[in-house]
Amino acid sequence: MKTKTRAFSKSFVITVIMAVLFCNNISAQTETQMVRFAKLVIDSVQLDKYKVFLKEEIETSLRVEPGVITLYAVSEKNKPTHITILEIYADTSAYKSHIQTPHFLKYKTGTKDMVKSLELVETIPLLPGVRIK
Amino acid sequence: MKTKTRAFSKSFVITVIMAVLFCNNISAQTETQMVRFAKLVIDSVQLDKYKVFLKEEIETSLRVEPGVITLYAVSEKNKPTHITILEIYADTSAYKSHIQTPHFLKYKTGTKDMVKSLELVETIPLLPGVRIK
Repeated sequence: MKTKTRAFSKSFVITVIMAVLFCNNISAQTETQMVRFAKLVIDSVQLDKYKVFLKEEIETSLRVEPGVITLYAVSEKNKPTHITILEIYADTSAYKSHIQTPHFLKYKTGTKDMVKSLELVETIPLLPGVRIK
Repeated sequence: MKTKTRAFSKSFVITVIMAVLFCNNISAQTETQMVRFAKLVIDSVQLDKYKVFLKEEIETSLRVEPGVITLYAVSEKNKPTHITILEIYADTSAYKSHIQTPHFLKYKTGTKDMVKSLELVETIPLLPGVRIK
Protein backbone atom coordinates (compact mmCIF):
# COMPACT_ATOMS: atom_id res chain seq x y z
CA MET A 1 0.00 0.00 0.00
CA LYS A 2 2.86 2.34 0.94
CA THR A 3 4.66 1.56 -2.31
CA LYS A 4 1.54 2.38 -4.28
CA THR A 5 1.13 5.72 -2.46
CA ARG A 6 4.80 6.57 -3.05
CA ALA A 7 4.50 5.70 -6.73
CA PHE A 8 1.36 7.82 -6.98
CA SER A 9 3.05 10.78 -5.20
CA LYS A 10 6.06 10.53 -7.50
CA SER A 11 3.97 10.53 -10.68
CA PHE A 12 1.83 13.36 -9.28
CA VAL A 13 4.92 15.49 -8.61
CA ILE A 14 6.26 14.77 -12.11
CA THR A 15 2.89 15.72 -13.63
CA VAL A 16 2.83 19.01 -11.69
CA ILE A 17 6.42 19.86 -12.71
CA MET A 18 5.63 19.09 -16.36
CA ALA A 19 2.46 21.20 -16.22
CA VAL A 20 4.38 24.17 -14.76
CA LEU A 21 7.15 23.84 -17.38
CA PHE A 22 4.55 23.57 -20.15
CA CYS A 23 2.67 26.68 -18.96
CA ASN A 24 5.90 28.66 -18.58
CA ASN A 25 6.83 27.68 -22.09
CA ILE A 26 3.51 28.91 -23.49
CA SER A 27 3.82 32.18 -21.60
CA ALA A 28 7.46 32.64 -22.73
CA GLN A 29 6.32 32.00 -26.31
CA THR A 30 3.51 34.53 -26.21
CA GLU A 31 5.31 37.19 -24.12
CA THR A 32 7.75 37.98 -26.92
CA GLN A 33 5.08 38.12 -29.64
CA MET A 34 4.65 41.10 -31.93
CA VAL A 35 0.93 41.61 -32.64
CA ARG A 36 -0.45 44.29 -34.92
CA PHE A 37 -3.00 45.27 -37.52
CA ALA A 38 -2.01 46.29 -41.04
CA LYS A 39 -4.82 48.42 -42.46
CA LEU A 40 -4.70 48.91 -46.21
CA VAL A 41 -6.77 50.65 -48.84
CA ILE A 42 -6.36 49.13 -52.31
CA ASP A 43 -6.96 50.64 -55.74
CA SER A 44 -10.39 49.22 -56.68
CA VAL A 45 -9.39 48.53 -60.29
CA GLN A 46 -6.50 46.33 -59.13
CA LEU A 47 -8.23 44.68 -56.15
CA ASP A 48 -8.46 41.18 -57.62
CA LYS A 49 -4.79 41.24 -58.69
CA TYR A 50 -3.80 42.51 -55.25
CA LYS A 51 -5.63 39.63 -53.54
CA VAL A 52 -3.74 37.07 -55.63
CA PHE A 53 -0.42 38.58 -54.45
CA LEU A 54 -1.55 38.73 -50.81
CA LYS A 55 -2.91 35.16 -50.77
CA GLU A 56 0.35 33.78 -52.16
CA GLU A 57 2.41 35.78 -49.68
CA ILE A 58 0.34 34.62 -46.70
CA GLU A 59 0.27 30.96 -47.74
CA THR A 60 4.03 30.86 -48.29
CA SER A 61 4.87 32.74 -45.06
CA LEU A 62 2.73 30.44 -42.92
CA ARG A 63 4.15 27.35 -44.61
CA VAL A 64 7.87 28.17 -44.53
CA GLU A 65 8.31 30.59 -41.60
CA PRO A 66 7.83 29.09 -38.13
CA GLY A 67 8.04 32.61 -36.64
CA VAL A 68 5.00 33.83 -38.57
CA ILE A 69 2.25 32.81 -36.12
CA THR A 70 -0.64 34.16 -38.19
CA LEU A 71 -1.54 36.50 -41.02
CA TYR A 72 -5.35 36.63 -40.91
CA ALA A 73 -6.61 38.92 -43.66
CA VAL A 74 -10.14 40.21 -44.18
CA SER A 75 -11.88 42.72 -46.43
CA GLU A 76 -14.76 44.83 -45.16
CA LYS A 77 -18.17 43.79 -46.53
CA ASN A 78 -19.23 47.42 -47.04
CA LYS A 79 -15.81 48.64 -48.24
CA PRO A 80 -14.22 45.77 -50.17
CA THR A 81 -11.08 47.82 -50.93
CA HIS A 82 -10.40 48.13 -47.19
CA ILE A 83 -8.22 45.20 -46.12
CA THR A 84 -7.12 44.48 -42.53
CA ILE A 85 -4.51 41.88 -41.62
CA LEU A 86 -4.03 40.61 -38.07
CA GLU A 87 -0.29 39.91 -38.00
CA ILE A 88 1.31 37.84 -35.21
CA TYR A 89 5.05 37.16 -35.20
CA ALA A 90 6.90 35.06 -32.60
CA ASP A 91 9.19 38.02 -31.87
CA THR A 92 10.74 41.08 -33.55
CA SER A 93 13.54 39.03 -35.08
CA ALA A 94 10.99 36.71 -36.74
CA TYR A 95 9.37 39.86 -38.18
CA LYS A 96 12.71 41.29 -39.35
CA SER A 97 13.59 38.07 -41.15
CA HIS A 98 10.04 37.85 -42.61
CA ILE A 99 10.37 41.19 -44.42
CA GLN A 100 13.59 40.02 -46.07
CA THR A 101 12.16 36.78 -47.51
CA PRO A 102 11.80 36.47 -51.30
CA HIS A 103 8.02 35.87 -51.01
CA PHE A 104 7.49 39.03 -48.93
CA LEU A 105 9.66 41.13 -51.27
CA LYS A 106 7.74 39.74 -54.28
CA TYR A 107 4.45 40.82 -52.64
CA LYS A 108 5.81 44.22 -51.57
CA THR A 109 7.27 45.07 -54.98
CA GLY A 110 4.41 43.54 -56.95
CA THR A 111 1.69 45.47 -55.09
CA LYS A 112 3.40 48.83 -54.52
CA ASP A 113 1.24 50.59 -57.15
CA MET A 114 -1.95 48.90 -55.90
CA VAL A 115 -1.76 50.06 -52.27
CA LYS A 116 -3.30 53.52 -51.83
CA SER A 117 -2.59 53.66 -48.08
CA LEU A 118 -1.07 51.51 -45.34
CA GLU A 119 -1.43 52.06 -41.60
CA LEU A 120 0.35 49.81 -39.08
CA VAL A 121 -1.24 49.68 -35.62
CA GLU A 122 0.85 48.06 -32.89
CA THR A 123 -1.24 46.24 -30.31
CA ILE A 124 -1.13 44.26 -27.07
CA PRO A 125 -3.22 41.06 -27.01
CA LEU A 126 -5.57 40.68 -24.05
CA LEU A 127 -5.22 36.87 -23.97
CA PRO A 128 -2.18 35.98 -26.06
CA GLY A 129 -2.86 32.24 -25.85
CA VAL A 130 -6.16 32.46 -27.78
CA ARG A 131 -6.25 30.41 -30.97
CA ILE A 132 -8.58 29.97 -33.94
CA LYS A 133 -10.37 26.62 -33.47
CA MET B 1 2.56 -9.56 -55.80
CA LYS B 2 -0.80 -8.93 -57.47
CA THR B 3 -2.57 -9.15 -54.10
CA LYS B 4 -0.15 -6.62 -52.64
CA THR B 5 -0.75 -4.20 -55.52
CA ARG B 6 -4.52 -4.61 -55.18
CA ALA B 7 -4.31 -4.00 -51.42
CA PHE B 8 -2.17 -0.93 -52.05
CA SER B 9 -4.56 0.43 -54.70
CA LYS B 10 -7.52 -0.10 -52.38
CA SER B 11 -5.90 1.73 -49.47
CA PHE B 12 -4.76 4.49 -51.86
CA VAL B 13 -8.32 4.99 -53.15
CA ILE B 14 -9.67 5.06 -49.59
CA THR B 15 -7.02 7.64 -48.61
CA VAL B 16 -7.90 9.87 -51.58
CA ILE B 17 -11.64 9.64 -50.81
CA MET B 18 -11.01 10.51 -47.16
CA ALA B 19 -8.76 13.43 -48.13
CA VAL B 20 -11.44 14.82 -50.48
CA LEU B 21 -14.14 14.43 -47.82
CA PHE B 22 -11.89 16.08 -45.21
CA CYS B 23 -11.12 19.06 -47.48
CA ASN B 24 -14.78 19.49 -48.39
CA ASN B 25 -15.62 19.44 -44.71
CA ILE B 26 -13.11 22.20 -43.94
CA SER B 27 -14.43 24.32 -46.78
CA ALA B 28 -18.05 23.71 -45.69
CA GLN B 29 -17.07 24.68 -42.15
CA THR B 30 -15.41 27.94 -43.17
CA GLU B 31 -17.94 28.93 -45.85
CA THR B 32 -20.68 29.51 -43.30
CA GLN B 33 -18.47 31.48 -40.89
CA MET B 34 -19.37 34.93 -39.61
CA VAL B 35 -16.20 37.02 -39.31
CA ARG B 36 -16.09 40.56 -38.01
CA PHE B 37 -14.30 43.18 -35.97
CA ALA B 38 -15.81 44.71 -32.85
CA LYS B 39 -14.12 48.10 -32.30
CA LEU B 40 -14.67 49.56 -28.85
CA VAL B 41 -13.58 52.66 -26.98
CA ILE B 42 -13.58 52.19 -23.20
CA ASP B 43 -13.82 54.77 -20.41
CA SER B 44 -10.17 55.11 -19.31
CA VAL B 45 -11.05 55.19 -15.59
CA GLN B 46 -12.78 51.80 -15.89
CA LEU B 47 -10.37 50.14 -18.36
CA ASP B 48 -8.90 47.61 -15.92
CA LYS B 49 -12.34 46.56 -14.69
CA TYR B 50 -13.55 46.29 -18.30
CA LYS B 51 -10.66 43.97 -19.19
CA VAL B 52 -11.54 41.61 -16.33
CA PHE B 53 -15.10 41.31 -17.70
CA LEU B 54 -13.89 40.80 -21.27
CA LYS B 55 -11.26 38.19 -20.36
CA GLU B 56 -13.79 36.13 -18.42
CA GLU B 57 -16.32 36.36 -21.24
CA ILE B 58 -13.79 35.27 -23.88
CA GLU B 59 -12.37 32.41 -21.82
CA THR B 60 -15.83 31.03 -21.04
CA SER B 61 -17.13 31.40 -24.60
CA LEU B 62 -14.14 29.59 -26.11
CA ARG B 63 -14.37 26.83 -23.52
CA VAL B 64 -18.09 26.08 -23.60
CA GLU B 65 -19.27 27.17 -27.07
CA PRO B 66 -18.02 25.02 -29.97
CA GLY B 67 -19.50 27.57 -32.40
CA VAL B 68 -17.28 30.39 -31.12
CA ILE B 69 -14.21 29.85 -33.32
CA THR B 70 -12.21 32.75 -31.93
CA LEU B 71 -12.45 35.98 -29.97
CA TYR B 72 -8.99 37.52 -30.35
CA ALA B 73 -8.89 40.84 -28.46
CA VAL B 74 -6.16 43.48 -28.56
CA SER B 75 -5.68 47.01 -27.24
CA GLU B 76 -3.76 49.60 -29.25
CA LYS B 77 -0.30 50.41 -27.85
CA ASN B 78 -0.76 54.14 -28.50
CA LYS B 79 -4.45 54.25 -27.52
CA PRO B 80 -4.94 51.66 -24.73
CA THR B 81 -8.65 52.48 -24.41
CA HIS B 82 -9.17 51.37 -28.04
CA ILE B 83 -9.98 47.65 -28.07
CA THR B 84 -10.50 45.56 -31.20
CA ILE B 85 -11.85 42.00 -31.16
CA LEU B 86 -11.57 39.66 -34.14
CA GLU B 87 -14.74 37.58 -33.78
CA ILE B 88 -15.24 34.34 -35.72
CA TYR B 89 -18.42 32.29 -35.30
CA ALA B 90 -19.14 28.98 -37.04
CA ASP B 91 -22.35 30.47 -38.48
CA THR B 92 -25.05 33.02 -37.69
CA SER B 93 -26.94 30.60 -35.45
CA ALA B 94 -23.78 30.06 -33.34
CA TYR B 95 -23.61 33.86 -33.00
CA LYS B 96 -27.29 34.15 -32.11
CA SER B 97 -26.97 31.52 -29.39
CA HIS B 98 -23.71 33.15 -28.15
CA ILE B 99 -25.42 36.46 -27.38
CA GLN B 100 -28.03 34.66 -25.28
CA THR B 101 -25.55 32.82 -23.02
CA PRO B 102 -25.33 33.80 -19.34
CA HIS B 103 -21.61 34.67 -19.66
CA PHE B 104 -22.21 37.01 -22.61
CA LEU B 105 -25.15 38.68 -20.85
CA LYS B 106 -23.05 39.10 -17.69
CA TYR B 107 -20.33 40.84 -19.78
CA LYS B 108 -22.84 42.96 -21.72
CA THR B 109 -24.72 44.14 -18.61
CA GLY B 110 -21.61 44.52 -16.46
CA THR B 111 -19.75 46.69 -18.99
CA LYS B 112 -22.58 48.79 -20.41
CA ASP B 113 -21.44 51.95 -18.56
CA MET B 114 -17.77 51.35 -19.44
CA VAL B 115 -18.17 51.22 -23.23
CA LYS B 116 -18.08 54.71 -24.77
CA SER B 117 -18.55 53.46 -28.33
CA LEU B 118 -18.94 50.19 -30.22
CA GLU B 119 -18.61 49.70 -33.97
CA LEU B 120 -19.23 46.31 -35.61
CA VAL B 121 -17.51 45.80 -38.97
CA GLU B 122 -18.64 42.77 -40.97
CA THR B 123 -15.85 41.23 -43.04
CA ILE B 124 -14.98 38.50 -45.52
CA PRO B 125 -11.82 36.49 -44.78
CA LEU B 126 -9.33 36.21 -47.63
CA LEU B 127 -8.17 32.73 -46.57
CA PRO B 128 -10.76 31.38 -44.11
CA GLY B 129 -8.66 28.32 -43.27
CA VAL B 130 -5.83 30.36 -41.69
CA ARG B 131 -5.15 29.51 -38.04
CA ILE B 132 -3.01 30.91 -35.22
CA LYS B 133 -0.02 28.55 -34.80
